[in-house]
Amino acid sequence: MYLLLREIRDRPLLWLLAFVPAVFVAQKLRPEAHAQLFVLSILAIVPLAALLSRATEAVAARTGDTVGGLLNATLGNLTELVIALAALRAGQYALVKGSIAGAIVANTLFMLGASFLLGGIKHHVQEYNRVSARLQAGLLFLATVALLVPSAVAEADATAGAGYIQQLSVSLSVLLIATYALGLFFSLKTHREFFGSAERAETGEIAWPLGLAIATLAGVTALVALVSEVFVESVQQAAATFGMTAAFVGFIVVALVGGAAELASALSAARKNRLDLSVGIALGSASQIAPFVAPMLVLLSYLIGPAPMSLQFWPGAVVMMLIAAMTASLVTNSGRSAWFVGVVLLVVYLIFAMTLYLLPPPLQ
Amino acid sequence: MYLLLREIRDRPLLWLLAFVPAVFVAQKLRPEAHAQLFVLSILAIVPLAALLSRATEAVAARTGDTVGGLLNATLGNLTELVIALAALRAGQYALVKGSIAGAIVANTLFMLGASFLLGGIKHHVQEYNRVSARLQAGLLFLATVALLVPSAVAEADATAGAGYIQQLSVSLSVLLIATYALGLFFSLKTHREFFGSAERAETGEIAWPLGLAIATLAGVTALVALVSEVFVESVQQAAATFGMTAAFVGFIVVALVGGAAELASALSAARKNRLDLSVGIALGSASQIAPFVAPMLVLLSYLIGPAPMSLQFWPGAVVMMLIAAMTASLVTNSGRSAWFVGVVLLVVYLIFAMTLYLLPPPLQ
Amino acid sequence: MYLLLREIRDRPLLWLLAFVPAVFVAQKLRPEAHAQLFVLSILAIVPLAALLSRATEAVAARTGDTVGGLLNATLGNLTELVIALAALRAGQYALVKGSIAGAIVANTLFMLGASFLLGGIKHHVQEYNRVSARLQAGLLFLATVALLVPSAVAEADATAGAGYIQQLSVSLSVLLIATYALGLFFSLKTHREFFGSAERAETGEIAWPLGLAIATLAGVTALVALVSEVFVESVQQAAATFGMTAAFVGFIVVALVGGAAELASALSAARKNRLDLSVGIALGSASQIAPFVAPMLVLLSYLIGPAPMSLQFWPGAVVMMLIAAMTASLVTNSGRSAWFVGVVLLVVYLIFAMTLYLLPPPLQ
Repeated sequence: MYLLLREIRDRPLLWLLAFVPAVFVAQKLRPEAHAQLFVLSILAIVPLAALLSRATEAVAARTGDTVGGLLNATLGNLTELVIALAALRAGQYALVKGSIAGAIVANTLFMLGASFLLGGIKHHVQEYNRVSARLQAGLLFLATVALLVPSAVAEADATAGAGYIQQLSVSLSVLLIATYALGLFFSLKTHREFFGSAERAETGEIAWPLGLAIATLAGVTALVALVSEVFVESVQQAAATFGMTAAFVGFIVVALVGGAAELASALSAARKNRLDLSVGIALGSASQIAPFVAPMLVLLSYLIGPAPMSLQFWPGAVVMMLIAAMTASLVTNSGRSAWFVGVVLLVVYLIFAMTLYLLPPPLQ
Repeated sequence: MYLLLREIRDRPLLWLLAFVPAVFVAQKLRPEAHAQLFVLSILAIVPLAALLSRATEAVAARTGDTVGGLLNATLGNLTELVIALAALRAGQYALVKGSIAGAIVANTLFMLGASFLLGGIKHHVQEYNRVSARLQAGLLFLATVALLVPSAVAEADATAGAGYIQQLSVSLSVLLIATYALGLFFSLKTHREFFGSAERAETGEIAWPLGLAIATLAGVTALVALVSEVFVESVQQAAATFGMTAAFVGFIVVALVGGAAELASALSAARKNRLDLSVGIALGSASQIAPFVAPMLVLLSYLIGPAPMSLQFWPGAVVMMLIAAMTASLVTNSGRSAWFVGVVLLVVYLIFAMTLYLLPPPLQ
Repeated sequence: MYLLLREIRDRPLLWLLAFVPAVFVAQKLRPEAHAQLFVLSILAIVPLAALLSRATEAVAARTGDTVGGLLNATLGNLTELVIALAALRAGQYALVKGSIAGAIVANTLFMLGASFLLGGIKHHVQEYNRVSARLQAGLLFLATVALLVPSAVAEADATAGAGYIQQLSVSLSVLLIATYALGLFFSLKTHREFFGSAERAETGEIAWPLGLAIATLAGVTALVALVSEVFVESVQQAAATFGMTAAFVGFIVVALVGGAAELASALSAARKNRLDLSVGIALGSASQIAPFVAPMLVLLSYLIGPAPMSLQFWPGAVVMMLIAAMTASLVTNSGRSAWFVGVVLLVVYLIFAMTLYLLPPPLQ
């Protein structure tokens, strides 16, 4: 417990935890102040996400390489998953899909671009291991192709009933999760020598005892879930207040909020000239959301959603994910980076954000 | 003749030749049993295709490097061509187009993926020459772009008359065949040192005399033509019986049946750690169908078809061919492979197959 | 002045300057002979463009590396810009957009392809520096993504008013120009060592005094502007006479005429086995038009056009630009070339030209 408090004292980002009780108080006192609740819940989720990823790593560090790798690979995007589950239970499928697509795009374009830019401003040319970057870009490309299929079919054939799309979505989800599991087997077991898994450990942080780590993981997850409820309830009316649509909020706001902690780690690694780590965080997260988190949500929608959710996305989101996946492939091909590469990635992200902000299209 | 019999004795695949007379007997006795005729004719085509590719190679081996290369390049997909011609004569253009698109996708995704997977299970990391892989991936990409144009034009401009599409298809066909011929000139004449053409010969098989080889080539081609007639006649009603559409049958069944012999060679080479050969067979076949077999069929439709055939494909087929060509480019870029790369390719193929099976779109 | 005359005497291309007065005489005498005026103005623009790029380089050579690089980067496509401005003032937006898309495609496919082919016929295998080729292909890809967005939005959402598209186009234009400026800062300032900028100078030409260079630049720009007026006035009726559409004229004719001088330089460099220079001219020009010339024209349309021009292109043009950008990325990835690579690029260009010629789609 003392370790946890020291951690909070040393990382200014965690001071935002003060907003967690503020959310619950505000919700009790003024449940109709959607705009304030929206802002407060965002401010509360950011430090919780940081704490969550710290706890996941602490558990992973205590459980050996393979189990730890598995934990990181399944719980690495726990914040995004918990927020999406809250939206799923509320039946806000546009928000869920927007946040999936947004997280993929934000990780491959914004997080990677910002890492390249910040790292490149300090270091003239940076190099990184491209073997694992390639595997992740490949998985991401595969998953994007799979996510594209139901939308393309629905587009091409107006007579295709929703039942067909749903059946296709479930089959694709099972296939994607199986492929993701095989990918883990590949990178954690048969070909682990290509993936420097040790690298993440030596960040000089104080090791947490397993008990504290698991307790933090459980407690913080519960808190994220509670704050997410408030967030999801307030999002629609708050977005309207700020002149934004559910598409923009899901695509940009949720994605950036859910990934804030990872973003901080990736940027700090890039400035320390450890670009391998930055690229690993950015692409690792994206290549986990597309073939694992997204299909899990489709399957879970049968258990907790008001109706089954499909993998059919708004065409623009599919195009954006495809462009993001292709850009990631092209960029990581060379294994070298300079600041302008980061600018190009950030500009592509900005173009997408601007398009969504200026002209909100009817997202599913 | 003795050589031919010994060949048949030594390769269990060729025992399926017993189904060839069975097809003709069954057609005489029960011409209305479409489902049985369909299955029998598939079982008969597989060994005939194997014998055909063996005979082509035997003739090629006897006629020197350049002529042999030319023969391999023009007769390498003779089975697919003969089946497509039977469908062309019957006016079944959906089947023809489906089998063209299906053969390209099956070769680049299924054959390449299965080779990488089987080879990778036995060998940790495999390397292969990527110069010729790149040329073939490039030709394939070019041909896919050409095949995409008429469909895109028809899509974009509903007022574009069928006459325009047809004129465009013929011009593109002539252009593609000319490019294919220049590509042969490049790989067989001016830059042959980059393409290890000798490699295919030394497979330890007994050399056939030229007479036997040519006689086998002619005889087996005739048999394939006869069996194909039965196949094409029975396919529509048989597909309906099995709950499949012409699109699915053309795209998956015809493509896999026509390429079964090459698939066997590619897989056996991959297990022997001769991945150069596997990649050569898979991409070589795809990069021959797209810029040579497909345009030949368009031109031949003027001679033997009931009406001219265009290059306009169902949009989904174009997307699948494009994704296959792009995937082949990305994958062969590194010249290295491990089992998971094979899994990714196979999953993309499975996604396409599943999409076609679950929701049969209106193919042309 | 003597230097200028000697230059004209030594370069047969410049003898076409005789057509410049011919255009003005013809316009006075027979203003209604559109077909003749069209041909005459094309013949007059070609040598003027050559002189213009010679003068730009002469000024650049006198003003030091950084300022010279800036000049080349902003005035390098002055001819295309002046023609486009004439069309802009006349409100011929289909011609403007066609010439932008056409210039990008012509530079990446036709100029690069012809260089690879002509160079490859003389030299077996040619190598070139791929670092700067990659930066330019990257910028081009980025700009193409940006140009794609307004068209995709307009396509996806029919209810999107023209106002939205216009607002989006202006924002994207500002963003692209800023990115282009950052790219210049990168290649001329922070990472100049990767970009062999000295290379262009040592072409053995006689240095011009600064006064002559600036006077020529100013005078020839004025002449190009005057001839462009005639060209734009005559183009519509002349195209109809020759059975061509504004789309085809803009996409093919204007692009090739405006780039004729650069084409001559690129081809001559390729034959001298200086492929670095050819690739630099071809991709440099394309990656200048997409993120600089095109957005400049959008912004300038507010000042001199009859109405604001958007970045919305005819879908086919977007597809062609995307394929051109992707092909450039794939091809320049290896840094090696042989004649068949050139054939493939030229065939893709021919396919596009043929499609536009056979079936003129409604551009704009």
